[in-house]
Amino acid sequence: MPEHQKIQNVVVIGAGNMATHLALALHHKGVNVIEVLNRTRQAGEKLARRVKAGYNTGLNAADFRADLFLLAVSDSAIEEVAKSLHLKDQLLVHTSGSVDMAALSGASSNIGVFYPLQTFSKEKRINFSNIPVCIEANTRENEEKLIQLARLISKKAQLLSSAQRKVLHMTAVFAGNFSSFMYTIAEDLLKKHGIPFSLLKPLILQTAATAKHEDIFSRQTGPAVRGDTRIMDEHLEMLAKHGVYMEIYDLISKSIIKHKTRNDEL
Amino acid sequence: MPEHQKIQNVVVIGAGNMATHLALALHHKGVNVIEVLNRTRQAGEKLARRVKAGYNTGLNAADFRADLFLLAVSDSAIEEVAKSLHLKDQLLVHTSGSVDMAALSGASSNIGVFYPLQTFSKEKRINFSNIPVCIEANTRENEEKLIQLARLISKKAQLLSSAQRKVLHMTAVFAGNFSSFMYTIAEDLLKKHGIPFSLLKPLILQTAATAKHEDIFSRQTGPAVRGDTRIMDEHLEMLAKHGVYMEIYDLISKSIIKHKTRNDEL
Repeated sequence: MPEHQKIQNVVVIGAGNMATHLALALHHKGVNVIEVLNRTRQAGEKLARRVKAGYNTGLNAADFRADLFLLAVSDSAIEEVAKSLHLKDQLLVHTSGSVDMAALSGASSNIGVFYPLQTFSKEKRINFSNIPVCIEANTRENEEKLIQLARLISKKAQLLSSAQRKVLHMTAVFAGNFSSFMYTIAEDLLKKHGIPFSLLKPLILQTAATAKHEDIFSRQTGPAVRGDTRIMDEHLEMLAKHGVYMEIYDLISKSIIKHKTRNDEL
Repeated sequence: MPEHQKIQNVVVIGAGNMATHLALALHHKGVNVIEVLNRTRQAGEKLARRVKAGYNTGLNAADFRADLFLLAVSDSAIEEVAKSLHLKDQLLVHTSGSVDMAALSGASSNIGVFYPLQTFSKEKRINFSNIPVCIEANTRENEEKLIQLARLISKKAQLLSSAQRKVLHMTAVFAGNFSSFMYTIAEDLLKKHGIPFSLLKPLILQTAATAKHEDIFSRQTGPAVRGDTRIMDEHLEMLAKHGVYMEIYDLISKSIIKHKTRNDEL
């Protein structure tokens, strides 16, 4: 790609976790963050200082010299904020897993999505190099520009359509948010019985490591996949005082049994 | 503990994953596995060769010179096999997370449990050093002997009663088996939409790493804990064709919301 088409100057809109981590990562790779726009002054100015950018509160104060407007605001605000920027043809992207690219179509003639698939916490500095960045754009040229930018910070740039990105985002709820809640249930029950949760940590890490392989279900263990109804009944009885946990145990166990039956029949 | 009271000679009963991994680990730490007893000759002889032990098929052929009889057979066989050994006062332990120590009480006057909390696959050589080994015994002396033995192979020997061990085993189903099934659901849905599962791997590993901390729920992310009903409804709609997955999504989301409400009220 010709040098003059590379993204070099970026305006970041927002100052939350996503905006902060992306702005820092780009800044450290030599991309100029020329301006941070954010409604709340304190957070906006803080981020601006960290990436040596200007700060503005009003969306109509956008610096139009930018090659890219990176809109990292909450899903529900994307469409409205995008329009308030009053762009014409400047490249505008959002960073959401679940919002259609089309939400930007009224705001510029050059649009796209730049979605890093990870959960960000405020405190921890993020190393993006292994975090997949999912790219979508309305033209081949914009696609190419965004892929180049993603590759600056990550080894895993991936083109995905809006529909695919939504599926990915939904499956991340299962693989990330729900698995985390399984740990919470375990922690909660162990605490009630005075047993240290640390005993489960090696198991949790080993289980996560099995996701390296294809066909994770072939490594499924436990009473459900063994069809061990004696143990399952015993566990359900132990959970009788914890209504929701019992329901979850029952439903997932049944689903594992069903999955096994289906696989056996194939 | 006086040298003459240390466990030095072990008879292993069984030749499945647990028996194999434990026998190998003990053998490599200088404990003499003097005999492997197993109904099926091929598996029994194979394990016996690997740990330089004798092999016998009949349970009544047990070598009574052993300091420890390690019963690593399936849960449902423990009680019966234990009795068939015709021991008197030799130390006898089982290796199960869910069977009461009392299942051995008819078989010897010295009994206990030696339960490594991990899922073993046949292929992979296991490094026990970080795997918690949960110990129970019917006397202080037996407890001490088993703790010493556990410390030979693991940094994490832990005394647990039968009741606590059963709770731990049940929570391992949530933290291990069920989180693994969450990955399976994600893999299944992604495959149906032609999206590489590898995109989720960094998220899965990062999520497992949060289990290092106390109060895992304080790090819970996703639409449910945010109360983002728009996204949850969208995901449920996407899952409408996958009945069980939709039910699981709905139940766990509701449980996360309930957990948050409860915590907020505390």
